[in-house]
Amino acid sequence: MNPVVVALGRPFRLAVIGGAPPSMIGPAHRVGATFDGRFAIVAGVLSSDAGRGRAAGAQLGLDPARCYADIGSMIAAERARADGIEAVAVMTPNDSHFAIVKAAAEAGLDVIVDKPLCNDAAEADELARIVAQAGVASVVTHTYAGYAMIRQARALIADGAIGELRFAAMEYFGSGLALKVEELPDAHRRWRLRPEKSGVSLVLGDLGTHAHHLVNFVAGAPMTALSAEVGTLMPGRAVHDWASLRFRLAGGARGAMTISQAAAGAENHIALRVFGAKGHVEWMHRDHEHLRLALQDGETRIYGKGQPNLAPIAAQAARLPRRGHPEGVFEAFAVLYADFADAMLARRAGRPPDAATPSPSVADGAAGVRFVHAALASSRDDGRWVELS
Amino acid sequence: MNPVVVALGRPFRLAVIGGAPPSMIGPAHRVGATFDGRFAIVAGVLSSDAGRGRAAGAQLGLDPARCYADIGSMIAAERARADGIEAVAVMTPNDSHFAIVKAAAEAGLDVIVDKPLCNDAAEADELARIVAQAGVASVVTHTYAGYAMIRQARALIADGAIGELRFAAMEYFGSGLALKVEELPDAHRRWRLRPEKSGVSLVLGDLGTHAHHLVNFVAGAPMTALSAEVGTLMPGRAVHDWASLRFRLAGGARGAMTISQAAAGAENHIALRVFGAKGHVEWMHRDHEHLRLALQDGETRIYGKGQPNLAPIAAQAARLPRRGHPEGVFEAFAVLYADFADAMLARRAGRPPDAATPSPSVADGAAGVRFVHAALASSRDDGRWVELS
Amino acid sequence: MNPVVVALGRPFRLAVIGGAPPSMIGPAHRVGATFDGRFAIVAGVLSSDAGRGRAAGAQLGLDPARCYADIGSMIAAERARADGIEAVAVMTPNDSHFAIVKAAAEAGLDVIVDKPLCNDAAEADELARIVAQAGVASVVTHTYAGYAMIRQARALIADGAIGELRFAAMEYFGSGLALKVEELPDAHRRWRLRPEKSGVSLVLGDLGTHAHHLVNFVAGAPMTALSAEVGTLMPGRAVHDWASLRFRLAGGARGAMTISQAAAGAENHIALRVFGAKGHVEWMHRDHEHLRLALQDGETRIYGKGQPNLAPIAAQAARLPRRGHPEGVFEAFAVLYADFADAMLARRAGRPPDAATPSPSVADGAAGVRFVHAALASSRDDGRWVELS
Amino acid sequence: MNPVVVALGRPFRLAVIGGAPPSMIGPAHRVGATFDGRFAIVAGVLSSDAGRGRAAGAQLGLDPARCYADIGSMIAAERARADGIEAVAVMTPNDSHFAIVKAAAEAGLDVIVDKPLCNDAAEADELARIVAQAGVASVVTHTYAGYAMIRQARALIADGAIGELRFAAMEYFGSGLALKVEELPDAHRRWRLRPEKSGVSLVLGDLGTHAHHLVNFVAGAPMTALSAEVGTLMPGRAVHDWASLRFRLAGGARGAMTISQAAAGAENHIALRVFGAKGHVEWMHRDHEHLRLALQDGETRIYGKGQPNLAPIAAQAARLPRRGHPEGVFEAFAVLYADFADAMLARRAGRPPDAATPSPSVADGAAGVRFVHAALASSRDDGRWVELS
Repeated sequence: MNPVVVALGRPFRLAVIGGAPPSMIGPAHRVGATFDGRFAIVAGVLSSDAGRGRAAGAQLGLDPARCYADIGSMIAAERARADGIEAVAVMTPNDSHFAIVKAAAEAGLDVIVDKPLCNDAAEADELARIVAQAGVASVVTHTYAGYAMIRQARALIADGAIGELRFAAMEYFGSGLALKVEELPDAHRRWRLRPEKSGVSLVLGDLGTHAHHLVNFVAGAPMTALSAEVGTLMPGRAVHDWASLRFRLAGGARGAMTISQAAAGAENHIALRVFGAKGHVEWMHRDHEHLRLALQDGETRIYGKGQPNLAPIAAQAARLPRRGHPEGVFEAFAVLYADFADAMLARRAGRPPDAATPSPSVADGAAGVRFVHAALASSRDDGRWVELS
Repeated sequence: MNPVVVALGRPFRLAVIGGAPPSMIGPAHRVGATFDGRFAIVAGVLSSDAGRGRAAGAQLGLDPARCYADIGSMIAAERARADGIEAVAVMTPNDSHFAIVKAAAEAGLDVIVDKPLCNDAAEADELARIVAQAGVASVVTHTYAGYAMIRQARALIADGAIGELRFAAMEYFGSGLALKVEELPDAHRRWRLRPEKSGVSLVLGDLGTHAHHLVNFVAGAPMTALSAEVGTLMPGRAVHDWASLRFRLAGGARGAMTISQAAAGAENHIALRVFGAKGHVEWMHRDHEHLRLALQDGETRIYGKGQPNLAPIAAQAARLPRRGHPEGVFEAFAVLYADFADAMLARRAGRPPDAATPSPSVADGAAGVRFVHAALASSRDDGRWVELS
Repeated sequence: MNPVVVALGRPFRLAVIGGAPPSMIGPAHRVGATFDGRFAIVAGVLSSDAGRGRAAGAQLGLDPARCYADIGSMIAAERARADGIEAVAVMTPNDSHFAIVKAAAEAGLDVIVDKPLCNDAAEADELARIVAQAGVASVVTHTYAGYAMIRQARALIADGAIGELRFAAMEYFGSGLALKVEELPDAHRRWRLRPEKSGVSLVLGDLGTHAHHLVNFVAGAPMTALSAEVGTLMPGRAVHDWASLRFRLAGGARGAMTISQAAAGAENHIALRVFGAKGHVEWMHRDHEHLRLALQDGETRIYGKGQPNLAPIAAQAARLPRRGHPEGVFEAFAVLYADFADAMLARRAGRPPDAATPSPSVADGAAGVRFVHAALASSRDDGRWVELS
Repeated sequence: MNPVVVALGRPFRLAVIGGAPPSMIGPAHRVGATFDGRFAIVAGVLSSDAGRGRAAGAQLGLDPARCYADIGSMIAAERARADGIEAVAVMTPNDSHFAIVKAAAEAGLDVIVDKPLCNDAAEADELARIVAQAGVASVVTHTYAGYAMIRQARALIADGAIGELRFAAMEYFGSGLALKVEELPDAHRRWRLRPEKSGVSLVLGDLGTHAHHLVNFVAGAPMTALSAEVGTLMPGRAVHDWASLRFRLAGGARGAMTISQAAAGAENHIALRVFGAKGHVEWMHRDHEHLRLALQDGETRIYGKGQPNLAPIAAQAARLPRRGHPEGVFEAFAVLYADFADAMLARRAGRPPDAATPSPSVADGAAGVRFVHAALASSRDDGRWVELS
């Protein structure tokens, strides 16, 4: 049963900020939000040009009257309605997140926002402070946190399945910048290629914050220090497409991660292995619906969706909880939005929204932004170890 | 761009027949239908009890006035509306499909229906005739026909990549009946366990029709004859859970398939291999987003979503057409519904709807029902070869 | 420690019959025999032409005086030596096995022979009788019986890991006859293409007897009946390259296997799955050093070499018993030869040699030959079920 | 045909130094040496205790008269024989390699030696000088250099298949030190646990030199600089079991590798990926007989043994060159020994032995030792970049 409809008699009313076609991430947010019927998308800011915004809204089935040109006018207008929005979903370029999330949270709206939270570390901390003070629910859409087997990995490690942590090893190789996309005809439309939009380090913002969250989330221990090399593989490129880090987790476990967006031929390859005294967990994106637990003194176990013995946070993170019925990115977004709804219900029940779900909050997102800046600081200083606050 | 909104200025208006919670297949249909914005679900028959139907409709966001108790009253009432339904999606138990599809098609409504098309071979042929005469668009939701790599396999074989067909080998092992589910407390609610609902052979209707369509679709050649053993593995079970077949495809290629729903521990395992004079294609459900083409005189090729050289019918069958961004069953349903919309547009443009898409039509669904009956006839006669009409 | 050297102070003295270069199987036998130092190859029949035999023997490091032109003269001459041979390894074409094995066993020599045991069912039974009467040790080299994980599969099933048997499914696809090899320049040298040499059904003798042994061995239950189609895929071919069978195992479990040597692009693909009431085991040749045990009510287990909890017959079947140090066909032959040595030691200790090892004996080999003939009889009668004696 | 027997009429005469039971590596050397009949093992130094050496020699079938207590007496005695040894195979603890290889090379004997070449960088360079001056053939047994697909990877990259190099990423995780083996009863017999035997950094000598050679060999570019962290994961351990490095290859490509011997549950996991402008190659030890070439603008290719289009150095590196007939570590040693024999033949033909084969020579082994010391120097200086000479 849909817990939102149970509680309210209707879904939450959500506004989308950005994501108009031909955005790639827009459909993931919209399908995810409506997947379970916990949200109805009723308003949006789809373009700063009013006409273009209404045209895009029409494609999404939005009432033209609720297609706004900016967050401020939306907040003002929706506040005046009996059926005004209760939450906003932010999927605009990174540099705009700060102002939007700030405005929404200060208006008491719950907020779900794409990663990275923002580009500037001070702004990230400011957002974390604002959201905490406002008491609103928040989720940062680190896709992989919505995968059932990532949650199972976290649960197994928390449960002591691999014993005391020893080290984590991670690779994240995408091919989005493997070609010289800067020279393609539509390059001017790709805001990611402009550092003022995408931030001080593209590879760290785009992929690195995912990797940082994944390792923290699965290991159950925050990263406390790092030594990094960040750079550019593609000749003549203005943005970063390579990073290689060594790190420490709280408790002393070591780690290494290597990340590139210029990995020609790579299929969004993510390999995460966390080793402990008794064994390790291994998760590969190419087989994301299975998780390996390899024990030193026994056979290897494979966990998969639909098994009777999954941890509750993993079992719940399935839209089709039967063995061998594949799910993917859209369903992961549905999980994140389900968590967001749970956090919103918790807030309305007087409970702390952040604690209601395993999904990353704005506070987690702020840690990701600090990670980006720490890695850059280390790299600029030839790999010096930098502590993470 | 959403071609329906481009053509009509709005999505098609769809009614759902069945699929109320806690149905497993209901969400797949509803998410699939609305995924791309080509359909809006505006009406439904969710229970023969009017009150229960309205309650279920409320959960799905339906107007209570458009929640009907049966297909006949829905057709009558919707016909009277300017914004009446244009298509129906049928996800009720198998034994009810005939009457619903017949009524809908005869009313000129386009129809998408779960598999198997129906339980009786004569009824299946009758439906094929009615749909053809009515000229309506039709799709039978053989999930796997919505997977991009199944379409790529079909395209490669059609293109001669493996040369003249030699043989096909297929396994389909599910675990839904691996336990004695007949003895579980909720068994009385599982209509599949009652032959009068699920048909003369559960394993053949549930899994066999999928397998039959898959092999025909990928090989590009219909099955022409078979020798089958159909039976029951689980002691004390009333329905079939095992079938093993040898077969011939048009053109003379041989084949074998083995199917069970009582395959303990199986993760909806489907392995399909089609061999030709020059090589073979291999597709495994557990890695459904990749396809192998193994050549006798060269290296093996792996095809995957997002590659630049996919066949158009494969490239289009992706909701997130980038390498390494997983999709699954819901997205396959979205593909089938996109095809359904294309067929509906074709009809409205005066073109034959069935030819507009690679998705299986009611005529294909009728072939599946004939396959079930032929396999049973062979099995009853100790494996005698039976020709398929 | 080498148990033969412990017992005798030296390795067993072995003669090789056949396998001279460029034979493919000769090296497997010779490497296997000497791998552990349990056998020294001291004599041979490498050609019926004496000079050619001595030349081939020289390449293998044999004393020219112990290179013989036929089995009879070898037995006579070696019997006269204080250091005469104690065992023979037979790797000649199938049609010669009967006379050689008969002569060796009747001379009291232990015998290890390539599969199939022979071509004729009556001769096979005669050999089984002779070997039993002579009390000699015997092994038929079904390669896969030497793999550690095949033995682990047998042990798990014997131990009840999957519960009562339900069905077995098997595929065996090789590509040796995928091209029209009959038309290659060296075709006249390939004795397999001549039925008078290779037997009544090439695919059944070459691959089918392996498959028959594998399923019997792993399931721990002999095949009791079958319904088969045997035929030829390649136009204009004189030998069989295709077989598809349904079968029963003792105890009533069902099964299916499909086999072809004309499977273009196949990498000696063998997939074996055995299902029981509680789960199934899955073994794929392409990952032959791992075994899956998938349980209906729990996670899937992966067994691999070097794990601490393997069954003894699996743990012993490793030449390099550490995780992740790959082995293959040659090492499987070493396992079969180690078993042969164990059986020889058992005989010398007055214990029944066949019972000393899990390796297939001549009696098992005879069952394989009967299987070939039963499958042919069924196929000739349009798939009629045939009981296996 | 065996090229040594063709050229000499007999195999090369080889002495083994070390490797007596229960050594793990001894059988790999002995099986590898004799696999193809290119070497006969005729002498050995198996223990510094004469009696124990003769007992071990007896187990290996050696003439007691040719079992020596040290390399010096062996060289003296064998030199006096008409059938004296021509080559030595060294598989003793690392700290003894220098004196043995020096004595052998200075005596004009060809030498094959286990890795790491030795423990001290100055000694390594000295050995490289001595071997070069003596003109003897040399091979250092980096196992993985004997795998066919590692050679195919090298050939593809050399051939431009992935374009200009961008970066390499490597993981090497073993579980040999995952438990506190120092506390096991037989710990005193494990020379690897004593730094004076195994060298200044166990993980770098044991695994790191393999990894260094692999990346250099496959990329076709030597490592030129590195930044390393080397340390110990297991509490209370005296030797290193962890290293994480960033590096540069000649030409400017970047790289990262992470290595541990304390990776609980790991199956000797090696993952090597080398990325270029057009695509990447991926090799995983767990599927060591296949190699992926993933192209940015096309499908992924899988290379495997027995394919018709392999590079010659890959095609030759198979003992059973047919698809789907698995090989492993022993066969890789056979490849290295075949290369050693080729180098010996080249020397005898007046050609430079090192250039005759792709196998690593003593010069390559010396580069590995320098790598170990450079990584340690970097680690001691908090990860400072160090140039490799």
